[in-house]
Order: sequence, then C-alpha cells, then structure tokens
Amino acid sequence: MQDKELYEDQIEGRNAVIELLESDRDINKIFVQSGEKHGSINKIIAIAKQNKIVVTEVEKSKLDYMSKTNNHQGVIAVIPPFNYCEVEDIIEFAKIKQEDCFILILDGIEDPHNLGSIIRTAETAGVHGIIIPKRRTVTVNSTVVKTSAGAALHMKIARVNNITETIKKLKKEGIWIIGTDGEAKTLYYNQDLKGDIAIVIGSEGYGMSRLVKENTDLLVKIPMKGKITSLNASVSAGIIMYEAVKQRNK
Amino acid sequence: MQDKELYEDQIEGRNAVIELLESDRDINKIFVQSGEKHGSINKIIAIAKQNKIVVTEVEKSKLDYMSKTNNHQGVIAVIPPFNYCEVEDIIEFAKIKQEDCFILILDGIEDPHNLGSIIRTAETAGVHGIIIPKRRTVTVNSTVVKTSAGAALHMKIARVNNITETIKKLKKEGIWIIGTDGEAKTLYYNQDLKGDIAIVIGSEGYGMSRLVKENTDLLVKIPMKGKITSLNASVSAGIIMYEAVKQRNK
Repeated sequence: MQDKELYEDQIEGRNAVIELLESDRDINKIFVQSGEKHGSINKIIAIAKQNKIVVTEVEKSKLDYMSKTNNHQGVIAVIPPFNYCEVEDIIEFAKIKQEDCFILILDGIEDPHNLGSIIRTAETAGVHGIIIPKRRTVTVNSTVVKTSAGAALHMKIARVNNITETIKKLKKEGIWIIGTDGEAKTLYYNQDLKGDIAIVIGSEGYGMSRLVKENTDLLVKIPMKGKITSLNASVSAGIIMYEAVKQRNK
Repeated sequence: MQDKELYEDQIEGRNAVIELLESDRDINKIFVQSGEKHGSINKIIAIAKQNKIVVTEVEKSKLDYMSKTNNHQGVIAVIPPFNYCEVEDIIEFAKIKQEDCFILILDGIEDPHNLGSIIRTAETAGVHGIIIPKRRTVTVNSTVVKTSAGAALHMKIARVNNITETIKKLKKEGIWIIGTDGEAKTLYYNQDLKGDIAIVIGSEGYGMSRLVKENTDLLVKIPMKGKITSLNASVSAGIIMYEAVKQRNK
C-alpha cells in the first residue's frame, strides 16, 4: 500500500473528476460508488468510456476507506503523481501565448485549502504558472486539487529548491518581482502591474521570508481600515492578481 | 448541557480570544490549559485580570471535550450568544462615521470558513455591516469567529427573515444594490462603486436566488480567463469589496 502511494495520486469528488476528465492529464482508473445514478456520475462514466478509461463500480465502504478528503461524493479517480513543471516551461508558455509573463510565487503557503483556492483564482486570472518551494509548504495533493475546483489540473506548477535563487533567475529574464508586505509604502492599486511580472505571496503566519523580501524589486500592501491587520492568504492573493488582470485588460 | 448551549457561545484559540478581549463584547469566563505558559496565554490572563474576568485553569482533556473547532490552542472563552444587530443600526453606523454606506449582503453562504473569511475581509475593507438571512445559511458560530481572525467580534451583522424585502427597504434609503453574477455584462471594475452601496454575494453553489437577482439595481461580473468558471465565494467577495475600497479612497 505504501509503495502504491508513492506512484499514484487520486482526485476525489464529482466536479474535480469532471475537470480531470476535461484536462489532458493521464488517468489510471476511476472508481464509482455502486448504485449511484446521479447525473454527474453518469456524465463521468460516459466521458471515461469515450476516452477508454477503466471505470470500476465499488461499494461505498471501499471509497470511504480510500478517501483522503472524506468527501468523495461517490467517485475517486486514480492518477499518476502530480506532474510539476520547470520554471522555464512557465516562461515559455507565456511566450507561446504572446502575453507578458504573469507568474505567482508562493513563499511557504502551508494550508492545502489556501493553496487550492489560490490556484483556482490564478487559473481564472490567466496566470501562466505558479512557483512553490520544495520545503515548508504543502504539495499539490488531492485536497488541493479538490479545493481548486480542478484548476490545479490546468495550471503549470513548478517546485524549486530555493525561492531566492529562482527570483534572481527571473530577474535576469527581465521579470519584475513584486512582493506583498503589510509595511510596504505603496498601495497595490497605485503600482503598475503590467509587463512581465511575478507576484510573491508569503506564508499565512509569517509573510515572506527575509531573504525573499530583500530580493523583490518592490513591495506593495493592501490597505486595512479595521482592527484586524491581515487578510486570509488566498483573499490577498486574489485581490492583487485581479488588480493585475484589470490593468492588463485596460 | 443543551440548555446551556442556547444561552452561551464560545470563542477558541489564542488570537481569537485576544481579539475578543480587545473588543467591547461581554465575556462570561475564560478557560486556559493548566501549565501552558505560552506568551499569548500569559497576555490573555493579564488582560482578563485587568478587566476582572474570571480565568480558570483546566486540564487539556476538558478543553478538548469543550472544543467545537478541535483547535483551541489552550484557551476557550465563554460568551453570551452572538449579538446580531438590526439593519437600521448598520445605516446609522455609516451616518455616525460620516461615510457613504458600504454594506455587504450574503445571500445564502453555507460554509463557515467562507463566512469567516468574508467577515475578515469586510472588516479590513471598512464595510459598515453585513446582512445575512435567517434561513439557508450558517450562523456566526465559534468556527466563523475563529476563521474571521476575530473580525466577527468587531462587525455589525444583521439577520433578516427575507433578503428581498430588506433590499427593497435599502433601496428606499437611497442605497444602490449591486449583485454579482457570472452572466452580467459589466465588469466589476468598470462599475462606479462609490456612494451608498450594498454588494450582494450569492451562495457557493448557486449564486444569488432569482428574486434577489431581480431586485438588484445592477449586476457585475469578475472576468474569467481560464477553464474554471467560478471563484471561491470569499475570494470573489474580497476582489469586489477591495475594488470599492480603491474607488472610494481615490
């Protein structure tokens, strides 16, 4: 069983599995709950058949046992482990789309729900790829994919050994590195977010690490009017990504 | 025990209890884990002493038993049930602050983490109050307060029988009702969000109800560039609230 976990991952829940089927990712097998005749389960079975993916009916108890999210909704797909890309692939992807680079760097997000929600927003905002560190962070597991509403399956995500070194490389490529920090002087909406940029979001509790902060080109902050002095990381990321979307669309 | 739950609520976790102590809400009693000498626990004990609030040391097992969030971090405060306000109190509050009304209406948010995160963003964005329906929604419970990082303790929240009727009343007060809908023609950032406004956020799965939608003055949407067609409710709410913040600050 442990060996198997090294080689396989799984996606759970109806919408996430439909997103999976509509992405170009490999699927080893799909398990559906025996007797479930819900519309979206039928849709999953139909698309899987079309794509010649094996679908096996199993008892609810087996799905419950397999489930890592405790919310499988009658369907679990078994897939090869998440296929991380290289930073170069992200830059290349922006070039192919003939767009200015729009990259997100997550410096130590620890909560899988935050990571999932950030990936979901990044996908809708047209971000070309996300960079996460190999250590001190969650990996793209089944909870992340589910919380992302399947967006993780469409998103280029690179894992790097050292965020600071990666930032230095991006700078050499002419990409502006924009950090977010409560003590910054510039409000995010007064900053030009057009051109080739990478936005850095720090960890939930501690923000960006010192070295990362020192290596950004500039820092922006979100104004806070109340007694609470910080926002949820996925909300902050959403607010800043969409300011960039707005400036780039205009 | 059941009777007690009717009359009392509880706030769990170090930061949430510190926020509670710094708010003007009544506190019946605070339980701290015996032997915990963490800095923020000491801070809680000191502030409580100053305010003549009873602090009782108990075993970890008792806190585990009491805990509703499974994450009490060694401290639980017992408080009277959440004190909802009236819609009129929210309008009055904006008048006292001599600001244009900035109200949030949540039409059926079901997930306590989403509600908590939305309240947190609303508090930092300077929203004067939040209106939620009495049915089909979560109440402001301990999970909501914790996810809000304590912001729920500083926020005016009104519960109403009928959101549509409330919207009609707000309109008579000259408040513009702005709905969010994926099929709207206007992008949220092309809409004037200054003046007296109430922004309506629909439920996670279904958006706004038909009647509520028909009673809005106008609808806006967030542009979506990828394959995923919706955002997490708390992220959408954050993006739109902060566009209003920006326009009002300028």
